[in-house]
Amino acid sequence: VSKVAILMGSSSDLPSLQPAIDTLAELQIPVEVRVLSAHRTPARAIEFAAGARAAGYRALICAAGGAAHLAGVVAAHTLLPVIGVPLGRSLGGLDSLYATVQMPAGVPVATVAIDGAANAALLAAEILALSDDALLARLEKRREETTAKVIATDEDVRKKASRL
Amino acid sequence: VSKVAILMGSSSDLPSLQPAIDTLAELQIPVEVRVLSAHRTPARAIEFAAGARAAGYRALICAAGGAAHLAGVVAAHTLLPVIGVPLGRSLGGLDSLYATVQMPAGVPVATVAIDGAANAALLAAEILALSDDALLARLEKRREETTAKVIATDEDVRKKASRL
Amino acid sequence: VSKVAILMGSSSDLPSLQPAIDTLAELQIPVEVRVLSAHRTPARAIEFAAGARAAGYRALICAAGGAAHLAGVVAAHTLLPVIGVPLGRSLGGLDSLYATVQMPAGVPVATVAIDGAANAALLAAEILALSDDALLARLEKRREETTAKVIATDEDVRKKASRL
Amino acid sequence: VSKVAILMGSSSDLPSLQPAIDTLAELQIPVEVRVLSAHRTPARAIEFAAGARAAGYRALICAAGGAAHLAGVVAAHTLLPVIGVPLGRSLGGLDSLYATVQMPAGVPVATVAIDGAANAALLAAEILALSDDALLARLEKRREETTAKVIATDEDVRKKASRL
Amino acid sequence: VSKVAILMGSSSDLPSLQPAIDTLAELQIPVEVRVLSAHRTPARAIEFAAGARAAGYRALICAAGGAAHLAGVVAAHTLLPVIGVPLGRSLGGLDSLYATVQMPAGVPVATVAIDGAANAALLAAEILALSDDALLARLEKRREETTAKVIATDEDVRKKASRL
Amino acid sequence: VSKVAILMGSSSDLPSLQPAIDTLAELQIPVEVRVLSAHRTPARAIEFAAGARAAGYRALICAAGGAAHLAGVVAAHTLLPVIGVPLGRSLGGLDSLYATVQMPAGVPVATVAIDGAANAALLAAEILALSDDALLARLEKRREETTAKVIATDEDVRKKASRL
Amino acid sequence: VSKVAILMGSSSDLPSLQPAIDTLAELQIPVEVRVLSAHRTPARAIEFAAGARAAGYRALICAAGGAAHLAGVVAAHTLLPVIGVPLGRSLGGLDSLYATVQMPAGVPVATVAIDGAANAALLAAEILALSDDALLARLEKRREETTAKVIATDEDVRKKASRL
Amino acid sequence: VSKVAILMGSSSDLPSLQPAIDTLAELQIPVEVRVLSAHRTPARAIEFAAGARAAGYRALICAAGGAAHLAGVVAAHTLLPVIGVPLGRSLGGLDSLYATVQMPAGVPVATVAIDGAANAALLAAEILALSDDALLARLEKRREETTAKVIATDEDVRKKASRL
Repeated sequence: VSKVAILMGSSSDLPSLQPAIDTLAELQIPVEVRVLSAHRTPARAIEFAAGARAAGYRALICAAGGAAHLAGVVAAHTLLPVIGVPLGRSLGGLDSLYATVQMPAGVPVATVAIDGAANAALLAAEILALSDDALLARLEKRREETTAKVIATDEDVRKKASRL
Repeated sequence: VSKVAILMGSSSDLPSLQPAIDTLAELQIPVEVRVLSAHRTPARAIEFAAGARAAGYRALICAAGGAAHLAGVVAAHTLLPVIGVPLGRSLGGLDSLYATVQMPAGVPVATVAIDGAANAALLAAEILALSDDALLARLEKRREETTAKVIATDEDVRKKASRL
Repeated sequence: VSKVAILMGSSSDLPSLQPAIDTLAELQIPVEVRVLSAHRTPARAIEFAAGARAAGYRALICAAGGAAHLAGVVAAHTLLPVIGVPLGRSLGGLDSLYATVQMPAGVPVATVAIDGAANAALLAAEILALSDDALLARLEKRREETTAKVIATDEDVRKKASRL
Repeated sequence: VSKVAILMGSSSDLPSLQPAIDTLAELQIPVEVRVLSAHRTPARAIEFAAGARAAGYRALICAAGGAAHLAGVVAAHTLLPVIGVPLGRSLGGLDSLYATVQMPAGVPVATVAIDGAANAALLAAEILALSDDALLARLEKRREETTAKVIATDEDVRKKASRL
Repeated sequence: VSKVAILMGSSSDLPSLQPAIDTLAELQIPVEVRVLSAHRTPARAIEFAAGARAAGYRALICAAGGAAHLAGVVAAHTLLPVIGVPLGRSLGGLDSLYATVQMPAGVPVATVAIDGAANAALLAAEILALSDDALLARLEKRREETTAKVIATDEDVRKKASRL
Repeated sequence: VSKVAILMGSSSDLPSLQPAIDTLAELQIPVEVRVLSAHRTPARAIEFAAGARAAGYRALICAAGGAAHLAGVVAAHTLLPVIGVPLGRSLGGLDSLYATVQMPAGVPVATVAIDGAANAALLAAEILALSDDALLARLEKRREETTAKVIATDEDVRKKASRL
Repeated sequence: VSKVAILMGSSSDLPSLQPAIDTLAELQIPVEVRVLSAHRTPARAIEFAAGARAAGYRALICAAGGAAHLAGVVAAHTLLPVIGVPLGRSLGGLDSLYATVQMPAGVPVATVAIDGAANAALLAAEILALSDDALLARLEKRREETTAKVIATDEDVRKKASRL
Repeated sequence: VSKVAILMGSSSDLPSLQPAIDTLAELQIPVEVRVLSAHRTPARAIEFAAGARAAGYRALICAAGGAAHLAGVVAAHTLLPVIGVPLGRSLGGLDSLYATVQMPAGVPVATVAIDGAANAALLAAEILALSDDALLARLEKRREETTAKVIATDEDVRKKASRL
């Protein structure tokens, strides 16, 4: 079965990543969660990245704040799709956004919104769903449910707040 | 064979997307290039997005500048991986970067660097290579060649510019 | 009677829009409040936009945060005046401001301040007042009252804080 | 017949406003173009604003750069819809964008994109078209032509650049 | 005796201006505090500006937030030195800073830091002190006291925190 | 006679300051132009600042780019009004703007627009005119001429560009 | 023994500098902590900088917020390495970052992250360790301990949060 | 003899680094210039960093643009002082500035100005001069010459541009 890894630079980032963990669980995708720092345990981060494909991972989610180098360092050592989540630790998250998204030609990082862990999981799921129809069905069901929920709140708000 | 689509909001964006077209060609990935505007031909953009999976596309590259809504509109109508390329038309590209990357939970866009069309193509290739070993081999060869080129310039610069 | 619609991407945005709802009520303008997401219920949003003129609306207020696409998507499907309210959900609201105001030539969005819902309502009222003299009179009265209130606080502050 | 005024702070701004002048001409809307500075001829600017409704204007387009106060000053003296065009003279236009869009509650300015003069004209046209069906027809025809043009370039680009 | 006026756009700005009021009081400079809005009571603001020199004012301190037009509007109607205080109400105060400092050639505003009311008062005092030796002496004494206070904390911190 | 000094950090800044030199000349205000660097000739800068009042100066204009410290260093050594001109050498001038305007309480710098040398001269003139009626008359004449020029271009543009 | 000085503009900055004081203590590096303001006690700051090498200091850490001039003023009076710590007092710390890092050619300041006092201490330690092998050994031990700690949290998080 | 290394991510960065090469040459400091990419030749970059101290280097200058990870990756593998030069390739250099300076606690990078290569060399020289009196003498002579040059241009500008 295809797996997804969630890497973060510090265990203090775990709450920011919880939406990704929960979303992958909901979609029944196996996930490995790791604390691997581009600056404090670079060798382990590189070793994980280099071995990830052979270990069965199909997408790597990397989250970091500030001068967020984790996604870039991982992307330099694998040809798996790397998904970057900039964390809003300073400057509203602009520093981590720029450090994640502005990668040089040759080494892409698929960047999602600042603190956008849930979408990182969904993006990983969309990638895995290209060759997993059951997962695609779960994704479709999830989107339909989301749509249904918005429609329900629409009906509710419309009645309560409109004044025609 | 899996295909990739490159969508742009205006034909004047074509030169910015050429690196993506060239990179996909180099990697022997079939590509369809379209001018589909989220604001001026929204129905066609939505129709394309909704039918893209059935038509054999496996990743959609969407490029736009300013209030760049194309990637978001496409992502709202498909569960294929959508890759956003913010184009630097105004404010150094910050407006298109924010409008592309800051998507709400539920509808992810995999954003690459401002004017980062080449990396959008490589990201699409990495996704397709998950189930295409020949493509993976081409990607690996490409990365090795890039590495070799940097090493060659390193030797060259080292000799000419160092003074020990 | 001319109506105004207030559209928002999520029911959690309702408190931010309350000043618009209250202002329109105060000015006796019929208002329909809807939760229509550009990304989660795009078909409903488009259907509403396309039918709004025929349904009697004369101005559409669209509020969203982050990669705020709602106003742009609505504006792509109507020639009614579309008023965009960028909501301050991240980056101080800069992402939603840019995503709302930096529209391409051909599809205008009348953007007000970040979290500026009250002014969105007043702008809609000014537009309706072009063909509704009673409404114009209410707007004039409102502005006079605002002026009077500022003058009253001026007298008050002047006495208490000055030291000549 | 309803008229639109285009006000700018300096005659050097005229080229930036030409797209607005041309668009209004194309839509057969009478236009008065004025150089009225919030800082150098404030009395004339205020006098114009205060008398604009009586003079037959139905929308006022105000363009300025830097600490762009013109739209705000005009909006303080009229209840006509005021459309602000921030001009990109410094800081990429951020100073004029903020000075135009961040108006306090009570005095709205409908802001369009930095250097977005064409959309200012279209917004004015949409407002006038609320009570002018012939103008609405011209606007509809214009949008259809824009759509047709994008479709034509789509066909063209698709053939030349795709490689399937 | 020369007087200074402190103008603000709303009575809610009073706490932000208190440091200016206190500093002027401490320096024995007569001060008039007014609530005069560029947008809601423009006529009163202009009348005050135009008559300020004749009324005995020698410097005008203008504070506003958002699209901060007050200082610019006042400066357009007087040749007295106008000191602008950008208030941090949104975007960290960047909108009011740009709207205050980026004035066009011909109409200067002496801008101080975001929420820098105390320095606005000191700048006004420096200007008045050019022709008031007693005030200059009070300013010199104040600066000496400030220096002495910093020296005292230096001695204190040095002893407690150093470790040699 | 009261004098004004124009200080800049490098002779390469001279063209940016020429509008200040010309404006002071036009207003018949004696001016001394100096190259005094906060970082490369700090002792001379400090000596000049400390002796400026005794030497007959009544306002000091300080221009610098990047980490613009000149105005702050000068202001720390005098109680004369110090006028800061942020020069646009990098980051669109934002670095020099922030480094000039965000002074701590106690040491004000009267900041004008990025590259706003002409307004720095006018602000100095307004300060000197508080005790020089002839200069005030020259300033009033200058403003009237500016107004007249704008009115003339208004008449011109109105005729040529309007279409009623 | 080589010493390091920590200079700050105000005693209110002391808590922000505590991580630097603690880190230097942990590494057994003698430290002198001073409150020396570039604006309020410039003579003392300059005197300290000019005499620092002779007094045995080998690196000077300078911390300030807003228009942060302290590091630049100190660097102008010494050829010792000067380390700047921008403090986040306003604008998220962007003003102090720019005012610290954007120094002109000739007078370098080694800038660390906004509120990055701990890294300022480590950078000073790295400099001193170039000629102090015992200190180098302590730095190595510290880094190994940091690595070990991250590895421990990695094992912990991996077990608790993964779901394979 | 102590050596300095200049590392850059691409040979196209060489012109931006030339001021550093020239400054080190002028100060008679041996320099090795290398093209080592954090993303395209990470193994070589890491190998160089890990062996740099043993190879006789005493400071490492790392220059990169965009998501500038080179300095951080190098700093993660050495306890030598690492000096980061953010290159202005996009967004005015803000992306590379943030990606270089906002390092997490534990791994410092001494950041200089955007495109500030000359100051990177001077900072390296200041560090080496702590244990090299001849180099210190050359640095002192260089600063004196810089001061003398500014004084000469001061005399020149003063005569030509002043008008007293």
